Amino acid sequence: MTVMRLGRVELRVLDLEKSVEYYTNVIGLEETGRTQDRVYLKAWDEYDHHSLILKKADSAGLEHFAFKVRNETDLSYFEKKVEQFGLTTSRVSKNTRLAEGQAVRFILPTGHQVELYYEIGYLGTAVGTLNPHPWPMNAKGIAPHRLDHVLLTGDDLKSVTRFFMEVLGFNQSEKITTVGGEELLGSFLFATNKAHDLAFVKGPDAKLHHAAFFVDSIHDVFKAADLLTMNEVPIEVTPTRHGISRGETIYFFDPSGNRNEAFANGYITYPDFPTITWTEDKIGQGIFYHRRELLESFMKALT
Amino acid sequence: MTVMRLGRVELRVLDLEKSVEYYTNVIGLEETGRTQDRVYLKAWDEYDHHSLILKKADSAGLEHFAFKVRNETDLSYFEKKVEQFGLTTSRVSKNTRLAEGQAVRFILPTGHQVELYYEIGYLGTAVGTLNPHPWPMNAKGIAPHRLDHVLLTGDDLKSVTRFFMEVLGFNQSEKITTVGGEELLGSFLFATNKAHDLAFVKGPDAKLHHAAFFVDSIHDVFKAADLLTMNEVPIEVTPTRHGISRGETIYFFDPSGNRNEAFANGYITYPDFPTITWTEDKIGQGIFYHRRELLESFMKALT
Amino acid sequence: MTVMRLGRVELRVLDLEKSVEYYTNVIGLEETGRTQDRVYLKAWDEYDHHSLILKKADSAGLEHFAFKVRNETDLSYFEKKVEQFGLTTSRVSKNTRLAEGQAVRFILPTGHQVELYYEIGYLGTAVGTLNPHPWPMNAKGIAPHRLDHVLLTGDDLKSVTRFFMEVLGFNQSEKITTVGGEELLGSFLFATNKAHDLAFVKGPDAKLHHAAFFVDSIHDVFKAADLLTMNEVPIEVTPTRHGISRGETIYFFDPSGNRNEAFANGYITYPDFPTITWTEDKIGQGIFYHRRELLESFMKALT
Amino acid sequence: MTVMRLGRVELRVLDLEKSVEYYTNVIGLEETGRTQDRVYLKAWDEYDHHSLILKKADSAGLEHFAFKVRNETDLSYFEKKVEQFGLTTSRVSKNTRLAEGQAVRFILPTGHQVELYYEIGYLGTAVGTLNPHPWPMNAKGIAPHRLDHVLLTGDDLKSVTRFFMEVLGFNQSEKITTVGGEELLGSFLFATNKAHDLAFVKGPDAKLHHAAFFVDSIHDVFKAADLLTMNEVPIEVTPTRHGISRGETIYFFDPSGNRNEAFANGYITYPDFPTITWTEDKIGQGIFYHRRELLESFMKALT
Repeated sequence: MTVMRLGRVELRVLDLEKSVEYYTNVIGLEETGRTQDRVYLKAWDEYDHHSLILKKADSAGLEHFAFKVRNETDLSYFEKKVEQFGLTTSRVSKNTRLAEGQAVRFILPTGHQVELYYEIGYLGTAVGTLNPHPWPMNAKGIAPHRLDHVLLTGDDLKSVTRFFMEVLGFNQSEKITTVGGEELLGSFLFATNKAHDLAFVKGPDAKLHHAAFFVDSIHDVFKAADLLTMNEVPIEVTPTRHGISRGETIYFFDPSGNRNEAFANGYITYPDFPTITWTEDKIGQGIFYHRRELLESFMKALT
Repeated sequence: MTVMRLGRVELRVLDLEKSVEYYTNVIGLEETGRTQDRVYLKAWDEYDHHSLILKKADSAGLEHFAFKVRNETDLSYFEKKVEQFGLTTSRVSKNTRLAEGQAVRFILPTGHQVELYYEIGYLGTAVGTLNPHPWPMNAKGIAPHRLDHVLLTGDDLKSVTRFFMEVLGFNQSEKITTVGGEELLGSFLFATNKAHDLAFVKGPDAKLHHAAFFVDSIHDVFKAADLLTMNEVPIEVTPTRHGISRGETIYFFDPSGNRNEAFANGYITYPDFPTITWTEDKIGQGIFYHRRELLESFMKALT
Repeated sequence: MTVMRLGRVELRVLDLEKSVEYYTNVIGLEETGRTQDRVYLKAWDEYDHHSLILKKADSAGLEHFAFKVRNETDLSYFEKKVEQFGLTTSRVSKNTRLAEGQAVRFILPTGHQVELYYEIGYLGTAVGTLNPHPWPMNAKGIAPHRLDHVLLTGDDLKSVTRFFMEVLGFNQSEKITTVGGEELLGSFLFATNKAHDLAFVKGPDAKLHHAAFFVDSIHDVFKAADLLTMNEVPIEVTPTRHGISRGETIYFFDPSGNRNEAFANGYITYPDFPTITWTEDKIGQGIFYHRRELLESFMKALT
Repeated sequence: MTVMRLGRVELRVLDLEKSVEYYTNVIGLEETGRTQDRVYLKAWDEYDHHSLILKKADSAGLEHFAFKVRNETDLSYFEKKVEQFGLTTSRVSKNTRLAEGQAVRFILPTGHQVELYYEIGYLGTAVGTLNPHPWPMNAKGIAPHRLDHVLLTGDDLKSVTRFFMEVLGFNQSEKITTVGGEELLGSFLFATNKAHDLAFVKGPDAKLHHAAFFVDSIHDVFKAADLLTMNEVPIEVTPTRHGISRGETIYFFDPSGNRNEAFANGYITYPDFPTITWTEDKIGQGIFYHRRELLESFMKALT
């Protein structure tokens, strides 16, 4: 049994208005709710009330991320398994944040705050469920379909990988290891059939590397790149392919310095597929298939 | 709990050599085994020994299709659930066909032969699992990643839908109904996160409408169309979009008249997504989003 | 010496408001001027005041089309050559239509009204000429770069081809002939380096087959197709490739029944390239490379 | 009157066999002739005997490049105009190189060797001129359609621009200037309708910046990038867009260090279009639209 999907990400941002402007006009998300210190957003192709929360804060970063499960039964089941693994859980009460039901909260071995939940307000997609058009004519900006995955940094990748596989039912699609295989430097995990729903690379605990939004094709990655230049958004990595996941990608920064990705394609995977291994000497090619070497900022800029 | 994926399709073909020539050179699958009356093939991106079996026969059509499950526990679990639903099961013994383990076999309410299995020979993809390239330089023809789905016809779509949802853990992504909603004319089902792994439309029992192979993009659908003309393969439906699934598509026929599809994109879905409804008056747009009307051959040519 | 380009097309339309609505919101042209019975439009990437004129009339069709030449010297030069060929010319005086200078007017052997001109108002593109962005963020609809070509019907294709080659300096990129080569059934002509700026197919004199607008890629042809369905515009030919020109294409109708095309790619050609020949038995493949047969409406619906 | 096109480029290479291996298997050109110290190649979509000559030498670089004109009349006409401009011309006799007729040779103000010619052997494209398919099924590697343009460096860009405009009939599509416009830092020139057939940027005289080959789309630029990594060819600039020309691009090096480009799209232009100006402060965006800053190697690595 696995969780259903990465359902939401809460990012800390320095300036709420500038951030909303960016996430609505450049990324093209829709604002769906607002309280004093938080703004809630969803992509046009998402049904639930929000997949992104912007929280006003003094420093950028990841406030929490959360997986949606099917129902209360699954929530209780996973709650017990998390406790059995040795993590402490707490219940976040309904309406702590807008449109949200109860959640089970805990801290990963890598220091990240995670929640599990099943209740959230329903808004529907921009195209509806009756004889729908394939996309909405009035979409703005990059207009991704949905939140896709997050990549986090942490020290103990073996434990956090074991946690997601044993407790939450994830599988590992790919991993990065030292050449001899002694140490785990990167771990790519899926609960669905996507190349990754969550990934970790070696680095400081509790940090966010990036949050990714899904677009359809190389063409849309290029359109995203064009729009980012038109909007003077800093692009860190221009359109390229990942060796890992095979996806087409572009990386850039939100106004607070949180890294975003527009990600397309990436293979479909299954629990019986073997884990693909990238050795450290090929890590450049694994991450940037065309450049074939890492970028210093890509390893250092974390929030 | 659900099955893992559509693992194989066995097609009846009239001329084994012409069919192998077509499936290897035009579709671009790899022949992985052969017995007197059967040839086994896989796509370059598949790990298992085969996903397509061509069986020499006097008439074209679908001999059987099969879902891979995770292990013997799951196989026994589903075997019991199939029996509880009221269908008779039998065990197909190991090595009845090449490289295959035991399977559980039964007949759907729509008359189609289905198997469940978990054991099959492992060959690996054309790019390997150690620092892999994203695609193989020597791929031929349309070169799909994998078998994607089958669409079948049958009379009692309510029962067969109920079977897949209650017994095998599928969800329904989309459905076609009469305008008032009284009758179910089409049912699109998924066990993974793909827009469909299996679909049924109203029609004669035990028939195949098409077997679909997955390609990456509109560009690859066009490349497929060009290659089909170069190889003088009959194209039934030139490149277009589906309203249902949003996928980009092209339909054509193998040398025995079995319909094939090269299918790209299509959304990612989840069990909590509502079922999308297409009403009969919009069925043309649902199936051929640009043409907006059905094609007579598309409803009639079944094998 | 050749003319510079197809500069404008004047179409007769039945309902001016409905036509403007279509050409601005669906095609995505910009209205640049208006008089009592005419509306002037340009594409976002065109510099001149207009490339399309809609003229209110009782029947649809082509009122005239015109080639831009470099200057008065060229205009006089071509005027003389047209006369020497045996056609009667007249001078259309400045400001007969909005923003236009003098033109030389004559009737082709196929009965079509043609003008040559060099003066026209200058508006500039939507992205400007100082450090321009590659495309405008506020483009609407199909948003073609420019008017690309027209295809006309006529009886005496040999004469009209000879006229364009001998008088206006065109070359012939491709032709359609009877299998034995006796009769010319189609003639594709270029004055630039594009696969065609003008084409004729055998048919009734003085008729328009279609006016084409240029888009960038297969992706944009598909986007056009999606938008046409969203706007309930009748599509005649869904996205496909031409054998002739190799371009990617989609055909559809404006509210008066004038056929439009969104056309992408197509090769670059030169005066020393041999003329490509399509024989009548392969005409289906030449026109619709994937369908490989003609469409009855495609031959019959003319305005 | 203008020249017809950039017809050939002769590159000096250090190792003839390694270079042929690269240009045939990675770029995907066809070897069409060979003498002791030269190998001749063409792209699949070119008609003439060759567009690229590899000449064995002790240092990499551009041996000469040449424009094809229509006939002897044009050749003599341009010969006189070159002389009138003040450059010394010589006639290169027929068969000095394989399959070539007489040429007129001269040295540009920037020190580059240029030839004009009209005679060259005819081989035809890989798809023929009778009912041709749009592309050849057996194409290898990047498989460009044709040689597209060269970019050269030199000191006196005003003179060389004036030469091409006044003598050879080119027009200037774009230019790079200091912010106040005093100095010309880049000049993009066309004789056809392509965004550039030839370009110069400020730098040492007589040097080659790159030779570009034309591919169809962003998709093919990405395919090229993938193939370059698979073949371990050094990529300097991963897939991106140019502000100048709007083309999609990737830069990489041949085994001798000559820079190559795979270039797609780019607009269609005409002699009456105004010259687009890029000011030095926006040069990064003009050259690499997404990165928005120059790359040191891009300015320094010249052959």
